Amino acid sequence: MGAREVGLPDVVGSGSLPSAVKIWEVGARDGLQNESVVVPVAVKLEFLSRLADAGLSVLEATSFVHPKWVPQLADAAELLAGLSRRDGVVYPVLVPNERGLDRALEAGVTHIAIFASATETFASRNLNRTLDSQFEMFAPTVSRALAAGLDVRGYVSMCFGDPWEGRVERAQVVAVGERLLEMGCSQLSLGDTIGVATPGQVESLLEGFRDVSRLAVHFHDTYGQALSNTLAALRCGVTTVDSSAGGLGGCPYAESATGNLATEDLVWMLDGLGVETGVDLDKLVETSAWMAEQLGRPSPSRVVRALTK
Amino acid sequence: MGAREVGLPDVVGSGSLPSAVKIWEVGARDGLQNESVVVPVAVKLEFLSRLADAGLSVLEATSFVHPKWVPQLADAAELLAGLSRRDGVVYPVLVPNERGLDRALEAGVTHIAIFASATETFASRNLNRTLDSQFEMFAPTVSRALAAGLDVRGYVSMCFGDPWEGRVERAQVVAVGERLLEMGCSQLSLGDTIGVATPGQVESLLEGFRDVSRLAVHFHDTYGQALSNTLAALRCGVTTVDSSAGGLGGCPYAESATGNLATEDLVWMLDGLGVETGVDLDKLVETSAWMAEQLGRPSPSRVVRALTK
Repeated sequence: MGAREVGLPDVVGSGSLPSAVKIWEVGARDGLQNESVVVPVAVKLEFLSRLADAGLSVLEATSFVHPKWVPQLADAAELLAGLSRRDGVVYPVLVPNERGLDRALEAGVTHIAIFASATETFASRNLNRTLDSQFEMFAPTVSRALAAGLDVRGYVSMCFGDPWEGRVERAQVVAVGERLLEMGCSQLSLGDTIGVATPGQVESLLEGFRDVSRLAVHFHDTYGQALSNTLAALRCGVTTVDSSAGGLGGCPYAESATGNLATEDLVWMLDGLGVETGVDLDKLVETSAWMAEQLGRPSPSRVVRALTK
Repeated sequence: MGAREVGLPDVVGSGSLPSAVKIWEVGARDGLQNESVVVPVAVKLEFLSRLADAGLSVLEATSFVHPKWVPQLADAAELLAGLSRRDGVVYPVLVPNERGLDRALEAGVTHIAIFASATETFASRNLNRTLDSQFEMFAPTVSRALAAGLDVRGYVSMCFGDPWEGRVERAQVVAVGERLLEMGCSQLSLGDTIGVATPGQVESLLEGFRDVSRLAVHFHDTYGQALSNTLAALRCGVTTVDSSAGGLGGCPYAESATGNLATEDLVWMLDGLGVETGVDLDKLVETSAWMAEQLGRPSPSRVVRALTK
């Protein structure tokens, strides 16, 4: 059944929302890297092609992190070599360090993203760096990328809670983020990596930054809060939202547990609010239903489940 | 793992929210009536007892609808006879008509709810009445209930979209609701029965009523919108929210598809916002995990899944 045939109410906006939102689709990278079933490169290429057909214009495609850490994305070079780039679509690639940047440049990438931590423990565990020394790794990567004409996005992870440290000081998150901006990142993506945040915390963090136009939000739906937090962020002026087609990124410990905010659930809300996204929801749902078949499990997206019953 | 041990951020409020919310727990009625596995009365009684232990003070207990239509609740009289009522907890019962009221009065019920439709088609299909003639059924039920000193709540279903009619006129919903209030209902519960609404539509409908203090909201999470819609309603001044422990009410057509907003996901948000509910989240999660075992399937609540991995 199509999204237009299920008894939809009128489109009704809500105060102080942007007229359009740019969806930064992370399904092929952040989504797949957390899926335990290894997906063949041909399937990934078809996935990216279908996402572009559905109207998504930012497709984070893969990552040049070491294959030892993320075997799912070990095919990054092969994938980028096989990619038919569309006009009007950008394909950012996650790049952890200078070696990753070298590989990205070889592959003809135009947009990269670096991945920083807002907490000491996660910096140590994920990057093998201190909170402070992570910037020594980013600085040459970013300056060389900028010199080569690339656009650089900065992810800030663990912005709200950290599984080892608990609460995260807002000032610490803002300091990490502002440092990435000063380094030359065009945009920050503020991540609730463990999905614990609620709307007041989101508003409070966003208010800590000087320029909301350079902020994107990246919510995980572990505790069901991702869409409410997105709504709060939109009301603060954020216009770029990260999400994952079909809610890809399920945790291997629990079948159908969720990772990222599902792009379909986001588009449903934005369509109802009259906020433009350029996305064709039915095409996107078809794509996610197809990908769920490839992964051999139902999509965690509510919209995908409801429309593919 | 307890809710307090997962890396929670500080509690941070958000503008113009109520300081406290009354949760109207519908798991035992609206939740179970949509579950295909028949639950023994002893299990239902333990469920209600555990929900009271977790701090919920409104427990919609069952329904006196004809057992032919809802076999799951055919044990309503037996359940109410076996119920150990707690001080400070009310146990409303759904009553479709005068016959149901007779049975409720016999059972010593103090709070009833009637179930109206906002659309012609659903009135016909669910009540075998026209939109207008449903009130002929409610009028004697409500007046006799009030004369007997009972409190009467009015549900209004299909407030946003209707699977047969599509969009629902706001004026029609408001007219149905105001008529129930004039009839003597103390509160309306505005239901998004098929889960299609988005926040602007919620705000628009709430603004159509004269007195927001008599409104509650009842969202289904079919399209993942329930919590965002709740946030929008709270910002409009609503202070009573319906939800279902563990997100009970899964559709039999799709495993783990969701029915009502999960009480745990609601409490997570309200706890983070510093809005009082009186609910002990860990006890509630334990209860829902136990009930999921009884039903032989995982809870659709994100919070329950995350905390019981």
